[in-house]
Amino acid sequence: MTAETANAPLRIALAGAGTVGVGVIRLLRDNAELISARAGRPLQITAVSARDRNRDRGVDLSGFAWEDDMTAMAARDDVDVVVELVGGSDGPALTLARNAIAAGKGFVTANKAMVAHHGLSLAQAAEAQQVALKFEAAVAGGIPVIKGLREGAAANAITSILGILNGTANYILSEMETSGAGFAETLKEAQSLGYAEADPTFDIEGVDAAHKLAILAAVSFGASMDFDAVSCEGISAIRAADIAQADALGYVIRLIGMADVERDEAGVPALLQQVKPCLVPKGHPLAHVTGPTNAIVAEGNFSGRLLFQGAGAGDGPTASAVVADLIDIARGETGAPFSVPASDLVSMAPAEAGKRTGQVYLRFTVTDKPGVLAEITAAMRDANVSIESLIQEGRANDGGEVFVAMVTHDGPAGCVDHAVQLLSDSPSLTAPPLVMQILSD
Amino acid sequence: MTAETANAPLRIALAGAGTVGVGVIRLLRDNAELISARAGRPLQITAVSARDRNRDRGVDLSGFAWEDDMTAMAARDDVDVVVELVGGSDGPALTLARNAIAAGKGFVTANKAMVAHHGLSLAQAAEAQQVALKFEAAVAGGIPVIKGLREGAAANAITSILGILNGTANYILSEMETSGAGFAETLKEAQSLGYAEADPTFDIEGVDAAHKLAILAAVSFGASMDFDAVSCEGISAIRAADIAQADALGYVIRLIGMADVERDEAGVPALLQQVKPCLVPKGHPLAHVTGPTNAIVAEGNFSGRLLFQGAGAGDGPTASAVVADLIDIARGETGAPFSVPASDLVSMAPAEAGKRTGQVYLRFTVTDKPGVLAEITAAMRDANVSIESLIQEGRANDGGEVFVAMVTHDGPAGCVDHAVQLLSDSPSLTAPPLVMQILSD
Repeated sequence: MTAETANAPLRIALAGAGTVGVGVIRLLRDNAELISARAGRPLQITAVSARDRNRDRGVDLSGFAWEDDMTAMAARDDVDVVVELVGGSDGPALTLARNAIAAGKGFVTANKAMVAHHGLSLAQAAEAQQVALKFEAAVAGGIPVIKGLREGAAANAITSILGILNGTANYILSEMETSGAGFAETLKEAQSLGYAEADPTFDIEGVDAAHKLAILAAVSFGASMDFDAVSCEGISAIRAADIAQADALGYVIRLIGMADVERDEAGVPALLQQVKPCLVPKGHPLAHVTGPTNAIVAEGNFSGRLLFQGAGAGDGPTASAVVADLIDIARGETGAPFSVPASDLVSMAPAEAGKRTGQVYLRFTVTDKPGVLAEITAAMRDANVSIESLIQEGRANDGGEVFVAMVTHDGPAGCVDHAVQLLSDSPSLTAPPLVMQILSD
Repeated sequence: MTAETANAPLRIALAGAGTVGVGVIRLLRDNAELISARAGRPLQITAVSARDRNRDRGVDLSGFAWEDDMTAMAARDDVDVVVELVGGSDGPALTLARNAIAAGKGFVTANKAMVAHHGLSLAQAAEAQQVALKFEAAVAGGIPVIKGLREGAAANAITSILGILNGTANYILSEMETSGAGFAETLKEAQSLGYAEADPTFDIEGVDAAHKLAILAAVSFGASMDFDAVSCEGISAIRAADIAQADALGYVIRLIGMADVERDEAGVPALLQQVKPCLVPKGHPLAHVTGPTNAIVAEGNFSGRLLFQGAGAGDGPTASAVVADLIDIARGETGAPFSVPASDLVSMAPAEAGKRTGQVYLRFTVTDKPGVLAEITAAMRDANVSIESLIQEGRANDGGEVFVAMVTHDGPAGCVDHAVQLLSDSPSLTAPPLVMQILSD
């Protein structure tokens, strides 16, 4: 950086002026003085693009150039960095990203879907152009976890990542815990309070968390991004009775993103990436994460366990992460987006989850007739699953169902899968069994 | 950075080869490949200095040049960065720091006392020389909280910092919680387990936490470092009965470092810095921090609440933080050590704690005779302290003491101080009253 550019403003084009975009405008205005002092230069929005120029957003856009076509911002001479807050894994957001980087501009995005699908090719382009590509806001809202892993824990081989990465799902689960209400009812309430969208699929089925997990895995393990390999299961099958049962056993239920790397005898790495509801011991840091909060636990081979926690969404927190990236760029930090150069990221085969050992919670809903318990326990025996405890509710519910929950001893996950498969055609089961991994402390 | 130096090793001189120094040597050896990939160049120790060259440390030092006088390392041509792990706020550590920076070398330290006392002048020197001064390891061991605040939360005005910053004190308090044992007994046990030093004064009296708090305050608020202004109180007066009483009221007791900035009507800032045992609501993130773990809660005006948690000490975690700083330097990150240039740090007067309002826990130990309760409650009335609840134990303990605990309504801290002062000459009190602030959720 020359002395001349060192104090020149960092000029920003903003694509998207929804709640987060307006949050960025407000933040850059309200905190302008301290941001300028910390960044060593002012951060200045020069151009904005959004769908509707005339909507009242509560902020004054008249000082910024307006572009109807956001992809045109990549070509503007008065722009150093493009901030993309539009969303969508492909389409205009991706075009804008590619054009901005090709034009030698930095690129900052909150778009987890795009980074999870195209982060690798975008990083290669950014590194070739020696421009910054940053996406702190794409993972866990305002929590500086990308920085924490990419830089703060950079000295460590990260051995595992566990995260609560979706605020909507966590809000629903912790509400169910408090109220004792069922999933459908709690979802409806979350929607009315604005914690869940009208179409909540991406949140409650784990897709949103899976996007974030794939990004975290690439940063943490130097693994080539592989979103399609994330094994993903949502929370819609969880019942109030599961939460009560978990509580009685000393656990809470959380939707957990989990990633780690295992190596075979020849040292060939395989990457586990899964988003699944799990039983979390009440003494575990993630058990205390309630409401829409997000949290990530990373284990480093020298640092030990690190926890990063904060607001997982919202205009303020997301704007905080976007502007942190901009301050880094203003300070001259334009290193490899995924910590190591994109060409050094290692393509890893998905790990076979079935070989993993651990304790598992299994819940069956069955018809209320003799012999069902014998059928279930026989399947467990035949699949070599050892049962630590089993609870059968004494009375059938209104639907004539009986609830049978059990916890296995430590054993291979594949055996549990086999047991479930043995029971898959059983007419005694009124719904597919719910299988949840139990985390250790 | 020129193309030539970009891939040249970063050459490191290590002052101090105790447990942390050996941890750094091990880390740089064990994780060499991934560190080199992340830093873009190898990190290579070239020289080492320590008290005893011949002590068996379990690592091979023969590949490094040896200096008997550590301050000589500042002058070596084969060194880019000096790492100081010797400790002591003045003396050789400070001489080494000044000489290394003056010689144009980067400087990385885990020395909280030196940074708390001399961080400002060292930062000015480092900025003048355009070299890096970094001290992630000086605060909260392996937790990347300096980075988290300096960079991750850089977009925010930080409104407050709350931290559990001393692992020994936290271990003792959480052990007392679990075992019901007293302070002296628990300290002795902590010493035998290696969680407390033979002379535990700095840890249990809050001095170590105060060093860290002063550093956090400078980074967070742009305040000129003012260690002498930290109001500091330790945990040795806390009894098992206080912990039991707090528990019954829904709290745990933690030694909390607290800092924030208040502004008067003219906008003149005043800085609150205190380390004191506090009652923490069981729902607060810091209530779940047990054992030697450290944690910091920062409130940003856009990010909301951020929590950073991890191991507060130990060779692995501390080495992790030291090497993270080295990787930053290898990547070319040499910005202002305290986020804003040292010349821009604002000298702030200490805030008057007495004006703060809040709830307070007060505990008296009194002689078992009539009229004592009337005396205490009269002092409260005369000092305008409103009592929410009061518990007097029915029976005197072996020492003939009765235990009286109360919780006040929200009110100014100064009134409580006044009440305590009114009782200071009372012959009924067998020990000075214990006053602890109650944190809100």
